[in-house]
Amino acid sequence: MFDHRHLLGIEHLSPTDIAAVLDRADTFATTPDSRAVRRDSLSGLTQINMFFENSTRTQASFEIAGKRLGADVMNMAMQASSIKKGETLIDTALTLNAMHPDLLVVRHPNSGAVALLAQKVNCAVINAGDGRHEHPTQALLDALTIRRRKGRLQRLTVAICGDIAHSRVARSNIMLLGKMENRVRLVGPKTLMPPGIEKFGVEVTDDMAAGLKDADVVMMLRLQRERMDGGFIPSEREYYHRFGLDAAKLAHAKPDAIVMHPGPMNRGVEIDGEIADDINRSVIQEQVEMGVAVRMAVLELLGEGRG
Amino acid sequence: MFDHRHLLGIEHLSPTDIAAVLDRADTFATTPDSRAVRRDSLSGLTQINMFFENSTRTQASFEIAGKRLGADVMNMAMQASSIKKGETLIDTALTLNAMHPDLLVVRHPNSGAVALLAQKVNCAVINAGDGRHEHPTQALLDALTIRRRKGRLQRLTVAICGDIAHSRVARSNIMLLGKMENRVRLVGPKTLMPPGIEKFGVEVTDDMAAGLKDADVVMMLRLQRERMDGGFIPSEREYYHRFGLDAAKLAHAKPDAIVMHPGPMNRGVEIDGEIADDINRSVIQEQVEMGVAVRMAVLELLGEGRG
Amino acid sequence: MFDHRHLLGIEHLSPTDIAAVLDRADTFATTPDSRAVRRDSLSGLTQINMFFENSTRTQASFEIAGKRLGADVMNMAMQASSIKKGETLIDTALTLNAMHPDLLVVRHPNSGAVALLAQKVNCAVINAGDGRHEHPTQALLDALTIRRRKGRLQRLTVAICGDIAHSRVARSNIMLLGKMENRVRLVGPKTLMPPGIEKFGVEVTDDMAAGLKDADVVMMLRLQRERMDGGFIPSEREYYHRFGLDAAKLAHAKPDAIVMHPGPMNRGVEIDGEIADDINRSVIQEQVEMGVAVRMAVLELLGEGRG
Repeated sequence: MFDHRHLLGIEHLSPTDIAAVLDRADTFATTPDSRAVRRDSLSGLTQINMFFENSTRTQASFEIAGKRLGADVMNMAMQASSIKKGETLIDTALTLNAMHPDLLVVRHPNSGAVALLAQKVNCAVINAGDGRHEHPTQALLDALTIRRRKGRLQRLTVAICGDIAHSRVARSNIMLLGKMENRVRLVGPKTLMPPGIEKFGVEVTDDMAAGLKDADVVMMLRLQRERMDGGFIPSEREYYHRFGLDAAKLAHAKPDAIVMHPGPMNRGVEIDGEIADDINRSVIQEQVEMGVAVRMAVLELLGEGRG
Repeated sequence: MFDHRHLLGIEHLSPTDIAAVLDRADTFATTPDSRAVRRDSLSGLTQINMFFENSTRTQASFEIAGKRLGADVMNMAMQASSIKKGETLIDTALTLNAMHPDLLVVRHPNSGAVALLAQKVNCAVINAGDGRHEHPTQALLDALTIRRRKGRLQRLTVAICGDIAHSRVARSNIMLLGKMENRVRLVGPKTLMPPGIEKFGVEVTDDMAAGLKDADVVMMLRLQRERMDGGFIPSEREYYHRFGLDAAKLAHAKPDAIVMHPGPMNRGVEIDGEIADDINRSVIQEQVEMGVAVRMAVLELLGEGRG
Repeated sequence: MFDHRHLLGIEHLSPTDIAAVLDRADTFATTPDSRAVRRDSLSGLTQINMFFENSTRTQASFEIAGKRLGADVMNMAMQASSIKKGETLIDTALTLNAMHPDLLVVRHPNSGAVALLAQKVNCAVINAGDGRHEHPTQALLDALTIRRRKGRLQRLTVAICGDIAHSRVARSNIMLLGKMENRVRLVGPKTLMPPGIEKFGVEVTDDMAAGLKDADVVMMLRLQRERMDGGFIPSEREYYHRFGLDAAKLAHAKPDAIVMHPGPMNRGVEIDGEIADDINRSVIQEQVEMGVAVRMAVLELLGEGRG
């Protein structure tokens, strides 16, 4: 089944692992009208959310997920300023580890920091986003949303659009969708496309019409201005004109294509507000719902055997 | 009984509704020496406190209230900076809503923001203060304190004193006390009196002696310097001399008049420290106790039927 | 047994009290491989952590301790800016007190502030560090660590090294170790040694070789640059050369001497990184583990009779 000790990235998961997480998550999935699912499976366990970067929505999702499974959940706001060297991160990890948490959910601005930390602790570590590296629960919740809407997670054409270079969401999704044998197209300005990305078996274009052609899934990314240090920063108007998802561009995709966005959205920059709100096309709210379900599944799978 | 889905303001409550909340709150009310009351009525429900303005005391009161009823309570510190437009507030609300909370307690610097948000979500919304508009649980806890001390909540003379213009506390209290058929006098500098306030059936004066004459209740307000943008800002000394509650001014009220303040107090500005601490007159600590009781009542009434 | 209402400082504890806390803590103590101990002894009680100074690790330790005993735990980040005068601290305390917490854990930058607050409230107050005054749970966890490693807490030679003047940890440890009839040596630069400290029955030296000679325990302190206002501030290199714990200096202690540090460490300033990580000498991680155990013991002892 799922015999990993940590969830550090999609990179380490097999297609069977991915299916195991999604199957478990299905048992927690809600619809807009249904009640939240609750269990006692993490009762008596301690979950610590250690966020070295602010993220109200991801932290809330993990907190709700843990509490609905009966865990004691603690949030620790780690000031980036107190963390100056790798050494200190390790000392922080060792200190927390000595308090015997069972589950450690970590977000960190540096790629690889979460994996480094996982080597030093006895508890299960979940990567909630590390630098530009991975954000595995986001890719899993996107996969669950696709699978529920499309009835399968194979042989789909998925266009991932926008600021690929700064996006750990894109990176984790590219790996997951590739492992499940989908056709992935990356669409965005050349300056926001990571060099050598073709080695992951994806197609690359800077033309939205070509990129979206016959797509089953259109996945928009947030323009991460805060991660752009120097280099090309497009104006919002120019960016929206060429890469923002509007009705005309979406017309190139399949008629039943779904539209995704990991949030928070810049309306009128990456995506037209009307498309974001179109309940026939947009599954953006459903992604948030599936986020809680996927995180409950991951926490429960990693927590099993610790109870 | 109490068949509202949200608690957005006193404006929407009937005298029967108000009595229903206070009667329920009475079952949670403590005295300084008694143990806190606990129940399981919100067990399995998720309460999210979303504060777009800092308020240690109000947030703590709602957190304690929810936990004492068995809810899973989460605090989300919303940085005002991340909220630039109404659109974004709605997206934030939709995102949280997709995580299926049952009770959402919201404080926001803009009048009307909480009502806007309530239209977009499936859960029960409680207004914990919106701009200069309303702060309904404060008015309800003031009402409970008055009812317990005076034995009734009708036919009393209540003087509300100070910075009326910037006070959502005053606004909610004026409406509640009016609905319950009390005589309300507003006392304060003309520059801190909202224009047209007489239409709410209140008497207005800038003379403390006249305003406090034969009052049963003297309710002092906090001088909200942080809300005064430009315009008249009185010096603290001058303000205290004319409008600060001291023994001489209080002598105009009835001998058994009670003194209230919503906190936090500016001692020596709105109120003399000795009067604030006089356990025969001041009910300021009791207001805080009744705050927990009223919030438990509101959470339980809105949570019923969701369990 | 332990019949104190608060834990304000080691100053007020008898040797019997200290042994009672450590004996209780032993029942909660874990080893790196063991599961955390849990009980329901604080079920139904409300614990509020009120930190007027940031301290991720101490606050986390108290939060975990309370939750593992079943308490409802709330964290309140008190902005130092909102606290300008003693009066306001008291009003804050009275307000919280009116919400009927059972246990109040307080850290404050001013010496004596926690004791002042304790006079005003009905609940049990635990000093989590006040200015340069006391940090009793740190001294108790150090004592537990020593007792478990050395088999006794009497007749040991303990060298406390570094920035004594700014350290409430040193102050509490000096009192505790003195009460238990140990020989305490303070080692550090004269400028970081509080005047008149000899009256506590300690030996004072600025020579690490002399100070560490035949020591059973070497307790390093954090260099608290943030507390040094003006006066002598040593360069880190110079400080490490004379007072940093390295293998050569440690050779003066007994061969089985243990090395302690309250954290967070400045590696290469107070202590050589290799010594900090040497599992045969360093008990730094164990101190963190014992921290949770000691805090569970204190919370349970003070909470008994309130349940």
